[in-house]
Amino acid sequence: MTKEQISTYFQELQDQICNALEKADGNGKFHEDNWQREGGGGGRSRVIQEGKVIEKGGVMFSAVWGDLHEKMLASMGLTEKVDFFATGVSIVLHPQSPLVPIIHMNVRYFEMSNGTFWFGGGIDLTPHYVVEEDAQWFHNYLKNVCDKHNEAYYPKFKTWADDYFFNTHRDETRGIGGIFFDYQKIDETRNKEQLFAFVKDIGESFAPIYTHFMEKNKDLSFSEKEKTFQMLRRGRYVEFNLVHDRGTKFGLETNGRTESILMSMPPVANWVYDYKPEPNSEEEKTLGLLKKGINWT
Amino acid sequence: MTKEQISTYFQELQDQICNALEKADGNGKFHEDNWQREGGGGGRSRVIQEGKVIEKGGVMFSAVWGDLHEKMLASMGLTEKVDFFATGVSIVLHPQSPLVPIIHMNVRYFEMSNGTFWFGGGIDLTPHYVVEEDAQWFHNYLKNVCDKHNEAYYPKFKTWADDYFFNTHRDETRGIGGIFFDYQKIDETRNKEQLFAFVKDIGESFAPIYTHFMEKNKDLSFSEKEKTFQMLRRGRYVEFNLVHDRGTKFGLETNGRTESILMSMPPVANWVYDYKPEPNSEEEKTLGLLKKGINWT
Repeated sequence: MTKEQISTYFQELQDQICNALEKADGNGKFHEDNWQREGGGGGRSRVIQEGKVIEKGGVMFSAVWGDLHEKMLASMGLTEKVDFFATGVSIVLHPQSPLVPIIHMNVRYFEMSNGTFWFGGGIDLTPHYVVEEDAQWFHNYLKNVCDKHNEAYYPKFKTWADDYFFNTHRDETRGIGGIFFDYQKIDETRNKEQLFAFVKDIGESFAPIYTHFMEKNKDLSFSEKEKTFQMLRRGRYVEFNLVHDRGTKFGLETNGRTESILMSMPPVANWVYDYKPEPNSEEEKTLGLLKKGINWT
Repeated sequence: MTKEQISTYFQELQDQICNALEKADGNGKFHEDNWQREGGGGGRSRVIQEGKVIEKGGVMFSAVWGDLHEKMLASMGLTEKVDFFATGVSIVLHPQSPLVPIIHMNVRYFEMSNGTFWFGGGIDLTPHYVVEEDAQWFHNYLKNVCDKHNEAYYPKFKTWADDYFFNTHRDETRGIGGIFFDYQKIDETRNKEQLFAFVKDIGESFAPIYTHFMEKNKDLSFSEKEKTFQMLRRGRYVEFNLVHDRGTKFGLETNGRTESILMSMPPVANWVYDYKPEPNSEEEKTLGLLKKGINWT
């Protein structure tokens, strides 16, 4: 299992996902940009804008290598220079309808010239309005995928997502979470093939999960009120990504490709001073469900 | 010159500015929130939304005190606990029209129980479209105010603003800059009264400067194209404030009042993947002027 094989697989995964999304959207097409990174490697960015279901989103593949950035060396307590290789697929999709959730997925592989390597990734869902049965369906889907590999994965990675996708300054989760994992290395319980098989299964869950929500909710009618709330929830999404998301912050600080990193920004977002939902409204109910530790399965 | 006198002055400045802005807007009214800080002190937040000229903005006063946060102690190399007192006025205004600039102003005073104290502040302008004569007028106004106090101030504080209000990940300045200064302490050239007189003059420049632009540009007609560009420029404003602005980041990390800190967010902002202005357009001209080191005076 070489880094080239993993990278080739991720590129194929990008193709599969883009095809599935275009088919489910029925109108939007991905626009492709190929880019090179000065220090080594590059990427294939695919962005969809003004689709029928997806208003704006990106499915990004990259495989980059070179000298490990000094910030990363420091964060790992390394004193000598090492080379790195990193490859992955990252997705954020902002739908047109407030009744279709925002989704994020990432699968990635990282290795260093000192022999260390690991996988990371996750999928999390940000419904503008939390619908409990949808949240349960989503979490059960992820739990089933995890359980096929290791029954400890779902509880561990679900908690990790709750903790990671958290807007501390708002004291609320970004959405209903999902799973998040990083630094997954081989050990006595799993070899590289087994880890990779898990990451592949997560990557391949993305299209069935999101096209399910696209199909199910794209034609539901909504009013101006729901649209307004969607714009405010997108504002919170922007806040999370720019203030807290480690990948975004690290990418921007280390001279990553800004347009690829910020593909996660919504097409439009709103802010209102000191927004308070109406008592007993759907908006209030949703805000009440943006908490860590809810058992959805 | 006690901290209470300085704080009382800042509160009066907030009054003066709100009155001047309401008069110039002709329709919008400030909504006031008084809040208490758990560790000591509090603030008086005034927010205007959906005015005739100002679409959303805040004129915030605060005076807070207590134990200095450990992050601040660390950043100052202090090992023993000290008490602090901080007071100031912060303003961000997002106008309705793309032809009226976004403006930011801040004046502040900080003292510690170990006897150290300093002033900080600044005014900077973010026109959606840079109009050279307006930029010159703005910088000359600030230079005249600075020169009354010390001819070294304007060049020093103008450069500081260029460096501070810079979106490194976009390689562009937030707007046309202005002045920015921090840690201004007494020395052989200035006593506390002189420093405070300078900060007062900056604070009192705000209303004449911004009402000038409100009056001058509020009735100019514009098209959908200018409105679209305004929304993209606001997206960059969001990026600066959430990714780079030290005050925002520090406030959010140290449990400040989120709604007061994020009053700087625009009512609506847009993002488009990989936006490129049309060749020889006004948009391209503006982007070409978002550079450090332009001499506007």
